[in-house]
Amino acid sequence: MSRVRVHNFSVSLDGFATGEGQSLDEPFGHAGGRLHEWFFATQTFHAMQGKTGGSAGVDDAVTGTWDAGIGAEIMGRNKFGPQRGPWENHDWTGWWGPNPPFHTPVFVLTHHPRPSVEMEGGTTFHFIDATPEEALRQAREAAGDLDVRIGGGPSTVRQFLAADLIDHMHVAVVPIILGRGERLWDGLEGLEKRFRIESVTTPSGVTHMTFTRR
Amino acid sequence: MSRVRVHNFSVSLDGFATGEGQSLDEPFGHAGGRLHEWFFATQTFHAMQGKTGGSAGVDDAVTGTWDAGIGAEIMGRNKFGPQRGPWENHDWTGWWGPNPPFHTPVFVLTHHPRPSVEMEGGTTFHFIDATPEEALRQAREAAGDLDVRIGGGPSTVRQFLAADLIDHMHVAVVPIILGRGERLWDGLEGLEKRFRIESVTTPSGVTHMTFTRR
Repeated sequence: MSRVRVHNFSVSLDGFATGEGQSLDEPFGHAGGRLHEWFFATQTFHAMQGKTGGSAGVDDAVTGTWDAGIGAEIMGRNKFGPQRGPWENHDWTGWWGPNPPFHTPVFVLTHHPRPSVEMEGGTTFHFIDATPEEALRQAREAAGDLDVRIGGGPSTVRQFLAADLIDHMHVAVVPIILGRGERLWDGLEGLEKRFRIESVTTPSGVTHMTFTRR
Repeated sequence: MSRVRVHNFSVSLDGFATGEGQSLDEPFGHAGGRLHEWFFATQTFHAMQGKTGGSAGVDDAVTGTWDAGIGAEIMGRNKFGPQRGPWENHDWTGWWGPNPPFHTPVFVLTHHPRPSVEMEGGTTFHFIDATPEEALRQAREAAGDLDVRIGGGPSTVRQFLAADLIDHMHVAVVPIILGRGERLWDGLEGLEKRFRIESVTTPSGVTHMTFTRR
């Protein structure tokens, strides 16, 4: 059975995975880039941008596991874009330019479906109004024997955790207090009982936590 | 100038420093002992109980710094006991038996002052209705050249952090999701700007974070 995985999911010390006030200029609202500085520094991220360089330590090693064996992604609409409600038009095709880093089918959860969009490099965005279970069924069908990544944002990851659909999760706890935004952990009391949890702090100051289903 | 310090302050991954439903049997409510298992295992805690044994690794080393150079403690009433509102009588003298582990003056913040209580071993409980600033003034006077410890609970530590009165803080992040209780981090957006923060995860799975005023 293919696994369902979460990778490179940064949260602040107070549990926010995104700030308040998402906009075209600030995908993470008032958090800006602060949740992801450790990630931007890695050679994995540099490579996603078609660049060389970047750190090659433990931050990079953990980050680099995000892609291998993934056959499809599921993401929330707020990860896909800053729009809310019915689409005014279909011009928006994500934050990632013509060749997004996914290179697989990507299922975008939205109450406002629209036609699929085929991008360069193998990424196709499908827009579906579905429960976590139904979205996962479609993503698994698209992924074949490969794993499915739950790409975020926080409410999407939280829903999949609440439905006990996640097999592996990498969370990076960043030592900042955001104060407001969207929390990851709400409504997940006792989550630790379902996972083996391993933590390590790296010199960047980030604590990487991996959750593996028991 | 003496410093104001917080030690051995455990929070869950979702930021709760105590659970819901404090009672005589459960000082930390539904959290039970889960926030402090790492602490109970140390030789420092064993010694507080007049026992030998316990772990002597990094958990213990960090824990063991709680006492040196402390001349007074300030604690909230909910750390002192489970009662709320006016005292029905003055029989309650804390959870710690006749010889509490503080061995200094301890200022208990309460809207319902009562006569001071002198315990064995040098601990005296003083009950004061005071702002953080005024409580600290009194505690500093009692402590002489020594430091003042802010003993908790979460709302007390949070108030002293909000008033920018803390110089050093040790927080232990425990990988459990409590879901409910009292949060430490609320209202402290941007706290990281005032501190140098160092983190280390130990084999117990706990991440020790030290905050030192910049």
